[in-house]
Amino acid sequence: MTKSPLKLAIIGGGSSYTPELVEGVLKRLDRIPVKEMHFVDVEAGKEKLAVIEALTRRMVDKAGADMTVTASMDRRAAIQGADFVMTQFRVGGLQARANDERIPLKYDVIGQETTGPGGFAKALRTIPVILDICQDIEELAPNAWMLNFTNPAGLVTEAVQKYTRVKTIGLCNVPVSMKMMIAEMMDCQPQELTLECAGLNHLVWAHRAWLRGQDITADVLKKVGDGASYSMKNISEEPWDPDFLNALGAIPCPYHRYFYQTEAMLAEEKATALKEGTRAEQVMKTERELFELYSSEALAEKPEQLEKRGGAYYSDASLNLVDAIYNDQKSLHVVNVRNDGTIPSLPDDVVIECSAVVGSWGARPIVVGRLGPQVLGLISQVKAYEQLTVEAAVHGDYDKGLMALASNPLVPDIDKAKLILDEILKTNHDYLPQFRH
Amino acid sequence: MTKSPLKLAIIGGGSSYTPELVEGVLKRLDRIPVKEMHFVDVEAGKEKLAVIEALTRRMVDKAGADMTVTASMDRRAAIQGADFVMTQFRVGGLQARANDERIPLKYDVIGQETTGPGGFAKALRTIPVILDICQDIEELAPNAWMLNFTNPAGLVTEAVQKYTRVKTIGLCNVPVSMKMMIAEMMDCQPQELTLECAGLNHLVWAHRAWLRGQDITADVLKKVGDGASYSMKNISEEPWDPDFLNALGAIPCPYHRYFYQTEAMLAEEKATALKEGTRAEQVMKTERELFELYSSEALAEKPEQLEKRGGAYYSDASLNLVDAIYNDQKSLHVVNVRNDGTIPSLPDDVVIECSAVVGSWGARPIVVGRLGPQVLGLISQVKAYEQLTVEAAVHGDYDKGLMALASNPLVPDIDKAKLILDEILKTNHDYLPQFRH
Amino acid sequence: MTKSPLKLAIIGGGSSYTPELVEGVLKRLDRIPVKEMHFVDVEAGKEKLAVIEALTRRMVDKAGADMTVTASMDRRAAIQGADFVMTQFRVGGLQARANDERIPLKYDVIGQETTGPGGFAKALRTIPVILDICQDIEELAPNAWMLNFTNPAGLVTEAVQKYTRVKTIGLCNVPVSMKMMIAEMMDCQPQELTLECAGLNHLVWAHRAWLRGQDITADVLKKVGDGASYSMKNISEEPWDPDFLNALGAIPCPYHRYFYQTEAMLAEEKATALKEGTRAEQVMKTERELFELYSSEALAEKPEQLEKRGGAYYSDASLNLVDAIYNDQKSLHVVNVRNDGTIPSLPDDVVIECSAVVGSWGARPIVVGRLGPQVLGLISQVKAYEQLTVEAAVHGDYDKGLMALASNPLVPDIDKAKLILDEILKTNHDYLPQFRH
Amino acid sequence: MTKSPLKLAIIGGGSSYTPELVEGVLKRLDRIPVKEMHFVDVEAGKEKLAVIEALTRRMVDKAGADMTVTASMDRRAAIQGADFVMTQFRVGGLQARANDERIPLKYDVIGQETTGPGGFAKALRTIPVILDICQDIEELAPNAWMLNFTNPAGLVTEAVQKYTRVKTIGLCNVPVSMKMMIAEMMDCQPQELTLECAGLNHLVWAHRAWLRGQDITADVLKKVGDGASYSMKNISEEPWDPDFLNALGAIPCPYHRYFYQTEAMLAEEKATALKEGTRAEQVMKTERELFELYSSEALAEKPEQLEKRGGAYYSDASLNLVDAIYNDQKSLHVVNVRNDGTIPSLPDDVVIECSAVVGSWGARPIVVGRLGPQVLGLISQVKAYEQLTVEAAVHGDYDKGLMALASNPLVPDIDKAKLILDEILKTNHDYLPQFRH
Repeated sequence: MTKSPLKLAIIGGGSSYTPELVEGVLKRLDRIPVKEMHFVDVEAGKEKLAVIEALTRRMVDKAGADMTVTASMDRRAAIQGADFVMTQFRVGGLQARANDERIPLKYDVIGQETTGPGGFAKALRTIPVILDICQDIEELAPNAWMLNFTNPAGLVTEAVQKYTRVKTIGLCNVPVSMKMMIAEMMDCQPQELTLECAGLNHLVWAHRAWLRGQDITADVLKKVGDGASYSMKNISEEPWDPDFLNALGAIPCPYHRYFYQTEAMLAEEKATALKEGTRAEQVMKTERELFELYSSEALAEKPEQLEKRGGAYYSDASLNLVDAIYNDQKSLHVVNVRNDGTIPSLPDDVVIECSAVVGSWGARPIVVGRLGPQVLGLISQVKAYEQLTVEAAVHGDYDKGLMALASNPLVPDIDKAKLILDEILKTNHDYLPQFRH
Repeated sequence: MTKSPLKLAIIGGGSSYTPELVEGVLKRLDRIPVKEMHFVDVEAGKEKLAVIEALTRRMVDKAGADMTVTASMDRRAAIQGADFVMTQFRVGGLQARANDERIPLKYDVIGQETTGPGGFAKALRTIPVILDICQDIEELAPNAWMLNFTNPAGLVTEAVQKYTRVKTIGLCNVPVSMKMMIAEMMDCQPQELTLECAGLNHLVWAHRAWLRGQDITADVLKKVGDGASYSMKNISEEPWDPDFLNALGAIPCPYHRYFYQTEAMLAEEKATALKEGTRAEQVMKTERELFELYSSEALAEKPEQLEKRGGAYYSDASLNLVDAIYNDQKSLHVVNVRNDGTIPSLPDDVVIECSAVVGSWGARPIVVGRLGPQVLGLISQVKAYEQLTVEAAVHGDYDKGLMALASNPLVPDIDKAKLILDEILKTNHDYLPQFRH
Repeated sequence: MTKSPLKLAIIGGGSSYTPELVEGVLKRLDRIPVKEMHFVDVEAGKEKLAVIEALTRRMVDKAGADMTVTASMDRRAAIQGADFVMTQFRVGGLQARANDERIPLKYDVIGQETTGPGGFAKALRTIPVILDICQDIEELAPNAWMLNFTNPAGLVTEAVQKYTRVKTIGLCNVPVSMKMMIAEMMDCQPQELTLECAGLNHLVWAHRAWLRGQDITADVLKKVGDGASYSMKNISEEPWDPDFLNALGAIPCPYHRYFYQTEAMLAEEKATALKEGTRAEQVMKTERELFELYSSEALAEKPEQLEKRGGAYYSDASLNLVDAIYNDQKSLHVVNVRNDGTIPSLPDDVVIECSAVVGSWGARPIVVGRLGPQVLGLISQVKAYEQLTVEAAVHGDYDKGLMALASNPLVPDIDKAKLILDEILKTNHDYLPQFRH
Repeated sequence: MTKSPLKLAIIGGGSSYTPELVEGVLKRLDRIPVKEMHFVDVEAGKEKLAVIEALTRRMVDKAGADMTVTASMDRRAAIQGADFVMTQFRVGGLQARANDERIPLKYDVIGQETTGPGGFAKALRTIPVILDICQDIEELAPNAWMLNFTNPAGLVTEAVQKYTRVKTIGLCNVPVSMKMMIAEMMDCQPQELTLECAGLNHLVWAHRAWLRGQDITADVLKKVGDGASYSMKNISEEPWDPDFLNALGAIPCPYHRYFYQTEAMLAEEKATALKEGTRAEQVMKTERELFELYSSEALAEKPEQLEKRGGAYYSDASLNLVDAIYNDQKSLHVVNVRNDGTIPSLPDDVVIECSAVVGSWGARPIVVGRLGPQVLGLISQVKAYEQLTVEAAVHGDYDKGLMALASNPLVPDIDKAKLILDEILKTNHDYLPQFRH
């Protein structure tokens, strides 16, 4: 990569998150000289895309930045010559997500966007599209970095790593949120903290936490066990059992609640679905409000209300990655990359989420040493589910899909796995061309 | 080992299974020249031991065998100079087993002797006793082979491998029963069949089945899916889903039903517990009847009724192992031994159940190659549970016990894990000296 | 494989060894009902092939066997419908072997048929031919087993495993010769002995030796150290240092002398080359004498003189393998097969030589556990050489060839590696089409 | 570690290198607030130690630093309360090194301080002493970091990692020298360069080199092949073969010449030994001159002549490590640490030299991915030698020592290994208490 100004292609540019990304870009122009942002979306998102485009132009103008802003349905034009391709799209929109949440609940199984059968369904819809995008990148921007924050980020990144030659890093706002929450409970600056993370996307542990050179892992676990606030917008804040945290000896991520506190989380989900609607159904409303705001000619900045939406720090996580690569920073980030022996009992070619040194070379994981059985059992089980899901999604393989769901720890047995799989395939029929053979 | 006549020490000699073992010994005297059988039991089993001793003498006399039969409470005398030590005891008797079955059911969790929280409780009671026995063997019969069929056989053998220098092989009647059932459904002789097994005790798969040189794995899966009889006395014969078996691509063991058909098995267990009582409660009755039979002076052979008891082929499994070792046969058996790279993603020092070549050298596993994610996730998860259980049992470590149960796929979450653990520790208080510190 | 009578295809049928193979077949007809032997050779071997064909017919007639004997240049006809394909050819004949022995000696480097630069040159000539044969087998006899004893057997088998779908086992007479020599020094029957072997072809150790249930490894090492006869026809019997054997703790194979006693072996080779000629040059004379004998109409059996030739037990090694596969014996043999974790620090896809259970399923290695650094360093170094050699041979890659020789422990440094490589490529120009691009 | 001022203990403080270290400390006082330096040495080095102490005081005074300087024979006093313990001693002094160089040469084997039999002898002398030091650290300064640059640094660090609980990092000036030489040939600043290093001490490769975000590995190899200066003071600058470098695909370190260009290096060593004396014999002279200079009351800075001595960048390498740990920098350094899966085919508990992120947590290696056979064979062979050497040195085990030398690629065979071992043991008798049992 040369140090010339950058072109960013944003796939799924009509997302309500985009203003945060734009704000992040404008804040960092001295470090990351962006000359062009090309937003692209599909036909169904045309209207939103136009709103985002207009708002972005107003933000760029206000910042006095010299930058081309383009918005189109032409994905190939967006990718052509891009230095970074950022993927943040949602196949099937929020309605598909609502289905992902509702279907498992019918069977008394966790219904969640990225974890359990919901994440499985989302992977089936998303992976064919991302592979298609990658074909364009291989052809039109072979040296570009694709930063994927389309969920389920681990599964999507694994498909890209296994089936394409695109240089990619998957990222997520969970690790950065963990850092922020821990900084708050320890009453320190985030940059004074270091977390040694290893696991899978939405199943990542901080195996050790360091504050100004001191190992504070036990202190953090104690605070979380004592009830310190430790959750994210979209996850119910079930309290953690202090004995369990002590036995675990590593700091779980908020999403671990689905695995460790399954029954309480399920009960909460069912109650909420009945009353306020599922998370997707709530978000639909937020989205409508946001786009109304975005449409105002008076608005030339990211509105505060966006923070309610949930994806805190996404912009920072992704643009700090761009900074680290572009400026060859060799700084530590938690990313989704090829395992390559980092967790030695997992195959080399799967994707894990871990602390890594990011620079012009991409991301090099740091060695965390052998993990103990208290985390390795769950990682192995969920990774088996993920490997099977990627194969099912790429090849439209029913058997692999069935084994995937049967291997997911949130699905109690094969009877439920089959019922849920069949309903997912039926409901998502239009988005699953790979299964229509 | 020299080719001189053999002394067998049978720990837990007062078991109702013993007559089958005695019959097996008498049948094989030409291959295995046993000169002495020393049965040993604890005070509480004194009466049963006397019945077994008398019956054994009658059986030996009828066979005209030249063999010393001893029965005592003196474990050290039994072990002194033994060539094989066979362990088949049950700490706490059938009442403890009934507790193991009842406690989890209260929490809507599978209640089973060897799998799930029931097996966990049994491991906590058994492991301290087996380590104590091993100290005697190290001192009094350091060259003896200990053949362990005390359940949970995998966990118990792992504790022995990790914490003693005793030469040991763990064994189980499940693999031999699988072979017998497959022979029946394929209408062939068992010796024409070969199964390539690898997994854990009560969680073992035949990854390939061979009949006279043909790979018949798919045929067997088809027959099982079509409803061929494929269960054991003590496991409810839930039907298998043909699609699932096809997706799995390996032949599960009957105990896999607890993991793959959890809800149906739980429902069946709850119904049975309500009506006929749990399996232990049923067995208590059978046991009483058996010992009444055994007491008859007229009886000088294993009575037919023993077969109802459930442990089919235990005698064959263990004495064929004695034969293979004593006569250096290099024959294939499915046994519980140190992993040592057989399943490469598991640590070297854990115990697995697998096909192995047995001879004077003990058991050498055969390489089965990398296992796929469809089985590896579950093996890894259950092995993590097992590693934590062994540590909890050896060190009386509450935290490890909690993580063990939380890692068991049959326990839905940590809330349940904690409730069940606390009740197990309380109920088994008298049998868990390691936790009374 | 069905139990119908068998067709054997013997590639390189004009070899002087063939009468031993024929004798072996005729001896085993009750266990291995061969209905057809098809010998095939290249144009240059036409005359020899005719001699072998005639002798074979006389042997078959004398034995009164009902068997078709065919000899032709038509490799495809030979392979068509074969059950076993046996490969024993020599590209370039004995003259090429003489070059393999002479070239390294010029540079003060061991000159040997299978080890060091000689084996490297032979691999370059042989691998393209074997891959060509495999294409025919894939097309014309996809269920056939190829038993390869073409040297260097480990390298050739690795190329087949990596680049074809042919079912193959590589074999060698070294392990069986070790067993025979150890039986002689221990004054026992070979069948009473078991060796646990693992390593690479011509670099295999017996890590433990068992005699009637006793571990006799230390006794064997002591006898070898004390000067017991322990070599093969074609390897100079340099005495072994008893201290070294004790430190090694495993029984080396005779070929290990090239690595452990390099300077003495080199001195002996140079002296012999000067006086009697290299081994190949000596063998040329023996071959002429043998074929003269074979041509005699009066001869209808394997002549005694063949034993001087060197390949003792080749016939037994290969036909016992046929027996084990055809009759599904599950017996132990030392073979060259895919590693698949047997030696965990080597890649799965390389070929090793090890004890394995052979039956209708092919060969399943037995687990020997982690090997210590005293053997692992050398195995790893030689395997690196082998991996690079296979790549060089398949792709005609000069760089890989240079790295291969530079990685061979018998080649002192890269200067020598380059000089030797260049001379090998030049001398073998006609046999190395893959390098002529 | 708290942010309070630091105490440094320097074991082997009387070394001629010490003024460089002192200069480095004084240069960095703003980042590393050292309050005390305690130099310690043995009786034989008393005189030199006094010279160093006086010079240090003059340097500290000139810098106007507020720092206690202590020099004593009392190792325990030095270690008591130290934050960093730096080990840079030489058991037996330069005379022992001269023996290490001379003995192998008698047998036509590379005679070098750290590589081959010379490094082996040095390890035997050094390891018992370092373990003794570590006992003091465990008792008197359990939280201190020991930075070891006593050679052979990899072997010494491995002994510490395996046999003590001391927190340690081994370091070497080779990687930093590689960076400096590459910066010079690429005409760039060293800080613009990043090398991805992995291997063993004095056997480390830069698998990839990056300059301002560009992969320049091939360019560097080309320049080295074309004759760019690429050696260190103490290593003869044999030219590199461009074809070989291209085939290797990784940048070797200057010490690789001993392995890759063995015969030329040996010839050069023999010629030099005859004329100027071995390296140690030359250094003795330099040392005398240096200490004469150091004694001058007028000198209050590191004299230029020290640079001729050879250990360029040692001070920078070690003090940058102190900086990274003390200030929790998370910066990249090449260090000797526990493998822990970084090179997956080597055991977890061996020490490797690799790029790592250094901070208050110590050093976390970065994952470099699977290495190819072109480097893995040599690493595995040398690591086997190292593992055996550590065992020989710790336990005084002759057999392990013999296997170690026999496994070293620079020793041609076991005859030479034995002769050299016996002479090393005899010559070093006074320094090898562990072998006198």
